[in-house]
Amino acid sequence: MRRVLIANRGEIAVRIVRACFDEGIESVLAVSDCDRDSLAAQLADRIVVIGPSSASDSYLSVDRIVAAALFADCDAIHPGYGFLSERTDLVEACAENGVTFIGPPAEVMRRSGDKLTARRTADELGIPTGSGTAGLLTVEDALAAADELNDYPLLLKASAGGGGRGMTVIRSREDVQQHFSRSSNEAERAFGDGTIYLERYVEFARHVEVQIMADTHGNVCHLGERDCSTQRRYQKLVEEAPAVGLPQDLLERVRNAAVDLAKGLGYVGAGTVEFLVDTERDDFVFLEVNARVQVEHPVTEMVTGIDIVREQLRVAQGLPLSFTQDSVTLGGHAIECRINAEDARNNFLPRPGRIDHWVAPQGAGIRVDTYAFPGAAIPPYYDSMIAKLIVHADTRQDAIDLMARALKKLRIEGVPTTVSLHSALMADKAFQHSPVTTKWLENEFLPTWEEQIS
Amino acid sequence: MRRVLIANRGEIAVRIVRACFDEGIESVLAVSDCDRDSLAAQLADRIVVIGPSSASDSYLSVDRIVAAALFADCDAIHPGYGFLSERTDLVEACAENGVTFIGPPAEVMRRSGDKLTARRTADELGIPTGSGTAGLLTVEDALAAADELNDYPLLLKASAGGGGRGMTVIRSREDVQQHFSRSSNEAERAFGDGTIYLERYVEFARHVEVQIMADTHGNVCHLGERDCSTQRRYQKLVEEAPAVGLPQDLLERVRNAAVDLAKGLGYVGAGTVEFLVDTERDDFVFLEVNARVQVEHPVTEMVTGIDIVREQLRVAQGLPLSFTQDSVTLGGHAIECRINAEDARNNFLPRPGRIDHWVAPQGAGIRVDTYAFPGAAIPPYYDSMIAKLIVHADTRQDAIDLMARALKKLRIEGVPTTVSLHSALMADKAFQHSPVTTKWLENEFLPTWEEQIS
Repeated sequence: MRRVLIANRGEIAVRIVRACFDEGIESVLAVSDCDRDSLAAQLADRIVVIGPSSASDSYLSVDRIVAAALFADCDAIHPGYGFLSERTDLVEACAENGVTFIGPPAEVMRRSGDKLTARRTADELGIPTGSGTAGLLTVEDALAAADELNDYPLLLKASAGGGGRGMTVIRSREDVQQHFSRSSNEAERAFGDGTIYLERYVEFARHVEVQIMADTHGNVCHLGERDCSTQRRYQKLVEEAPAVGLPQDLLERVRNAAVDLAKGLGYVGAGTVEFLVDTERDDFVFLEVNARVQVEHPVTEMVTGIDIVREQLRVAQGLPLSFTQDSVTLGGHAIECRINAEDARNNFLPRPGRIDHWVAPQGAGIRVDTYAFPGAAIPPYYDSMIAKLIVHADTRQDAIDLMARALKKLRIEGVPTTVSLHSALMADKAFQHSPVTTKWLENEFLPTWEEQIS
Repeated sequence: MRRVLIANRGEIAVRIVRACFDEGIESVLAVSDCDRDSLAAQLADRIVVIGPSSASDSYLSVDRIVAAALFADCDAIHPGYGFLSERTDLVEACAENGVTFIGPPAEVMRRSGDKLTARRTADELGIPTGSGTAGLLTVEDALAAADELNDYPLLLKASAGGGGRGMTVIRSREDVQQHFSRSSNEAERAFGDGTIYLERYVEFARHVEVQIMADTHGNVCHLGERDCSTQRRYQKLVEEAPAVGLPQDLLERVRNAAVDLAKGLGYVGAGTVEFLVDTERDDFVFLEVNARVQVEHPVTEMVTGIDIVREQLRVAQGLPLSFTQDSVTLGGHAIECRINAEDARNNFLPRPGRIDHWVAPQGAGIRVDTYAFPGAAIPPYYDSMIAKLIVHADTRQDAIDLMARALKKLRIEGVPTTVSLHSALMADKAFQHSPVTTKWLENEFLPTWEEQIS
């Protein structure tokens, strides 16, 4: 592999440029109009302008991405996360054009990307999935399926996608009636597929996900798990590795389930298997597979010392993983805070703009993945995450303390950010003392915090 | 130690702020008028403006530095390098005011700082110093001493200082006559002491220096050596660790000599013992002791994994070194390039200004110590070094290759820099294939390079 097209932007584009540099591979960055002067564009060996700022005509266009790869004579495409990263049609277009897709094969992508298919595979492998329905296309089907399950609360979910889009909690028959069409339409708009299904909604659970890496030589390893329970509207705000306070045997079962599923799917590359862990019952259910590198991969890198993006590049070249399951050791505790350009005082409204002032903290155990710099533009067309602040220390409390100190040293002017929210979180006794569930932030923390800052 | 005053600026101030952060110590930065908005000022916990931009009324004023430390209720002062870092009067003023000086005690500073005294101590310990004279104050004394030595070429050197100031090569009696007064005056202006001495000038030698660390518990260790032969006008441009191509027994003798000297001086803290290694004769002579952290300390940090500035903070608190001589291991090869805001095409004239554009390379084994950022001011009052680019790889050639790639990714606009010189150096076959001597850059490399770029 000589030259890779990076079909993404923002901090993950910077991250992939770096991994290419480290592997001695040339990086060509696909940029939209407004990203020509981005940090990733400045760091990449070369850029190709693929279209206007609107993502649908640039980062979301399979045709333009493949054309850019061919134009720049790239051997491979790294899709990052989001955008086209889990689009089977990109994988297929790559194959047709003799370009290596840095990710799982199309068939694996299809089976893992469609949440219903992934559920079925998990079922077949004996991995608990909780009760759920088949795909539903009409409100009548949904009502019939809900009646049959009769196990409220339920969750309406889009079969084709993630990120919370199309997702709604259903507490009664009336809720199905009321929300089905909106969910289905939202899924149709976001993923081009309005198929919806219902599953048992675990109200008090922790979001625990396992990082897996597989190569083309049959090696499948897990790199431990992450806890991403600190969420707002299904969007992760804080991620940690490892997941603390869980019985060792439960952790082993979760990790083994992830490896079994990866093997069952014939997985290749970096992926994540997400679970909900019911801490009261010491049990877990499979949630979904994310067939790509994830935003929160750095916390796993910090505790394992393994460079996941470089491993992706190795695997895509047909090389074996640079480690074995036995050589993977988990050391210390890592936390990542997503720093978003949002107005936390105003319902977390995205606030694009220009970063007038930017100083990143420096210190042992501190890592900042970002595309920000003084003068950097935060365009309004894409997501609002501008940086990930990651820390690594001996214990979870040490990591929280270090994160609190690092947040104090992170200075951003020009756009409002979620920094103050994260600072308040790190100082919160409940957050410090016990692992939280996925509803804790929204139900417990935010109402108090919003009152305090208003 | 609760709070440290940093009596310095530029990249070393950033470096010390970071070490304080890592040790959980508050950092207060002494800043001159023009450094109020510097990167170090933005990263420090607090700043104290100590005076106008002119160094003599700010960074070189013992009174103002001590007053700032007392004003900000600091327990200690870290002097960095240059400025007051080797000034006995600052060490004494600290002692009088109950402030810890982060460096060796006054008596050690006196004995190591005065080059003639250090030579005598080395002599007493059986460390080779080469032929030389006592302190000279008049041209008549110098002529008499030169006649007695009768061992040309000789070097005129200032007893009180370093950095090439006051230094002149003497090839004949007439040269003494011609250059003595200028050297003495230059030393008087730079160090407040015009005492000059003559020593045998080793024409083809490598500059090899040994990093030492000593604590107040009697532990004295060396952290291996650095090769800093790539110099222009006695100013180091490239530094490496370890020094390659030297017989192991010679290296052992050099390292032991440094430890012996440190013990003989009763050294405390971080210091460097400089030697000239005559590669043809497999011999060395003692040059001087630098009683401070040095610009090039990162290459030693990269090959040892030891944080020298944090160790300084530990030692100053009376803690033992965090390592023993046996636990110090040297791994791989590290190179540092000093990036100066200078016009290499115009006799390396310093060119202060504003950094309009700044992108630092990112990658495994790459470290950038700098105070630059987009929009940063490079004031005309101080030295022209704006960044140190440091790389670490398995072998010297790997490190050279990585440095070459990293230099390509370092983008600086707004001021001319020495980047292109360093790039040419890394591509130079002579530099790649054999260790160079201290005159190589000026005599061999620069004339050709200057012709090429003109």
